[in-house]
Amino acid sequence: MMAREIAEQPAAIEHTLTALMPLRPDLRALMGDRRHVLLVARGSSDNAAVYGRYLLETHTGVSAALAAPSVATQYRRERDLSDTLVVALSQSGGTEEIVTTQRWARACGAPTVAITNQADSALAHEADLALVTRAGHEQAVPATKSYTTQLAALAVLATGLAPDPSALDAELLRTPEELSRLLAETRLDDAVDLLAAGGPTLAIGRGLVLGTALEVALKLEETCLRPVRALSYADLRHGPIAVVASGVTAVLLAAADGPLADGLTGLAVDLRELGATVLGFGGDERFRTACDVGVPGPRLPEPVAPLGLVLPPQLAVESLARRLGLDPDAPRGLSKVTQTDRRRPTDPSEPTGGVQ
Amino acid sequence: MMAREIAEQPAAIEHTLTALMPLRPDLRALMGDRRHVLLVARGSSDNAAVYGRYLLETHTGVSAALAAPSVATQYRRERDLSDTLVVALSQSGGTEEIVTTQRWARACGAPTVAITNQADSALAHEADLALVTRAGHEQAVPATKSYTTQLAALAVLATGLAPDPSALDAELLRTPEELSRLLAETRLDDAVDLLAAGGPTLAIGRGLVLGTALEVALKLEETCLRPVRALSYADLRHGPIAVVASGVTAVLLAAADGPLADGLTGLAVDLRELGATVLGFGGDERFRTACDVGVPGPRLPEPVAPLGLVLPPQLAVESLARRLGLDPDAPRGLSKVTQTDRRRPTDPSEPTGGVQ
Repeated sequence: MMAREIAEQPAAIEHTLTALMPLRPDLRALMGDRRHVLLVARGSSDNAAVYGRYLLETHTGVSAALAAPSVATQYRRERDLSDTLVVALSQSGGTEEIVTTQRWARACGAPTVAITNQADSALAHEADLALVTRAGHEQAVPATKSYTTQLAALAVLATGLAPDPSALDAELLRTPEELSRLLAETRLDDAVDLLAAGGPTLAIGRGLVLGTALEVALKLEETCLRPVRALSYADLRHGPIAVVASGVTAVLLAAADGPLADGLTGLAVDLRELGATVLGFGGDERFRTACDVGVPGPRLPEPVAPLGLVLPPQLAVESLARRLGLDPDAPRGLSKVTQTDRRRPTDPSEPTGGVQ
Repeated sequence: MMAREIAEQPAAIEHTLTALMPLRPDLRALMGDRRHVLLVARGSSDNAAVYGRYLLETHTGVSAALAAPSVATQYRRERDLSDTLVVALSQSGGTEEIVTTQRWARACGAPTVAITNQADSALAHEADLALVTRAGHEQAVPATKSYTTQLAALAVLATGLAPDPSALDAELLRTPEELSRLLAETRLDDAVDLLAAGGPTLAIGRGLVLGTALEVALKLEETCLRPVRALSYADLRHGPIAVVASGVTAVLLAAADGPLADGLTGLAVDLRELGATVLGFGGDERFRTACDVGVPGPRLPEPVAPLGLVLPPQLAVESLARRLGLDPDAPRGLSKVTQTDRRRPTDPSEPTGGVQ
């Protein structure tokens, strides 16, 4: 199922863009003259939100931040959010914590946008505006097409709030064909060999592709059951690089252009000098040559590259899970609708969760 | 040096509180009627900022977020920050990236506060208000007293912006004696044995003590050279818990009270059922009994507990490094003033960094 759903991404992204791009004027009206966006998410949706945060801050004039849901759900502290657009992301639209935090945001005076794959969900019903992604039903537990369609929705959101909403349209609309090309052309034998041999694993990106590194780490954890530390290359160089030595595997994610491309190439060189084995996804020729194994990414500029860059590592994770004798469709100990706290005794006033 | 500097923390925090608490009216005046705080930091200072973020959001009416420095330093994207107080943290006050981001914030119209241990630094000179911590000179590369005095400065900031600035004063002023008590009473043989035997390691907290978990992970990485994945228990339960099995070591950080105490106790039980070995710091009796090894923390309420909770794990890390034959004062590959990018050719207009 996971492999099939990875392959469905070009069509899913195309349908999502077609459905959501016309909503940009509504997003702009809901934003008004506000200058703050607060993103509410957990898990893969949270990794998508990290992309949204960087795209908003680099391509519009707004400040964007990721919410700490516990402030709403555990500390129950209200504040005035009337100057902030709150965007809540949940594939199922039924994750209790996210629904509760969206309710809290409304009570705090914020206009709300839901990004969800379920039109008929609490999250969509209760939002001022729902951006319903068109991933179709996702059966495999590891999110793939629901994640990349969230990226597409976030690109619609950010471009909708940008001075010129259509400036990235040509590149955005080209993403489905780039994903199709990657599906046809990507060769992963060396990458999977490298990962299969790996010891302690790091996943590294920065800026617009930091979210991709976080997502690749989460996919490796959930699907291949190995702990992976994901971080920006700036954070890595600031201290944790001390752990890098022979035996460490570093997975680097890079766009082909943008202000961070050189930094990631330099990092690949330095990590190999420290003894690490480096697997690079994306980047340019120079970046891939600097890695032990380099897998090409999409031919897309950095602002929309994350929509395609995650596809080769998704394929690699699926393949690695099979190599390790694991079931990539239903990893150990996880289910599709997640709880972040132990279940409490049933309270009829609580949402039941979007069980499917 | 690291051991001595850990022991200097009661006096360093006391001096810092005495120096900074009188500045609360100035902080309040600088904030005006703004409702947003943006924290700028990297490394241990970033972990301190995570505490500041939660304390601000749970104890004042403001929204707080951590900045993405690359938006300023790499993408060079300006925005209107006139409604946001920007707080930049750097022990040395000379970290190029943090100084540059503070300059960017001023250019974007934000009032700025520097939290630094160096009164004579670019960060302090250029800020509208400098909160100079009184840690004294820190020689060991792993930050200890410079970190906890940053927590004290952040507590001064958050209480300064709270409706009743003195509501936490009794607890805050009691932190030095609690740290002294912990220095005298903490016994760590079992904890260090457990860590020395450890395989893949997780560090887990949530809310106000999430920053402590991040800091303990960073200390273990920098000083004991092992990769540690730190995360909130909500993020862990949402997916990465799949990796937990026999052989995994989980380090849990908990306050003795607050809305998350029960969740961390429940997590300790569940992680042991999954086969992990659990080392708990802080919490109440029930929490510590639920762990394989439980080390008591400070007798302080959750909002100020992080000032003391990090001390026992600091001692454990120092001791573990010696056990492993490593030098805790000068870990491999790190220096005291850090660069987050490869050094570029010298540009005379750039700050030289607070080299010491």
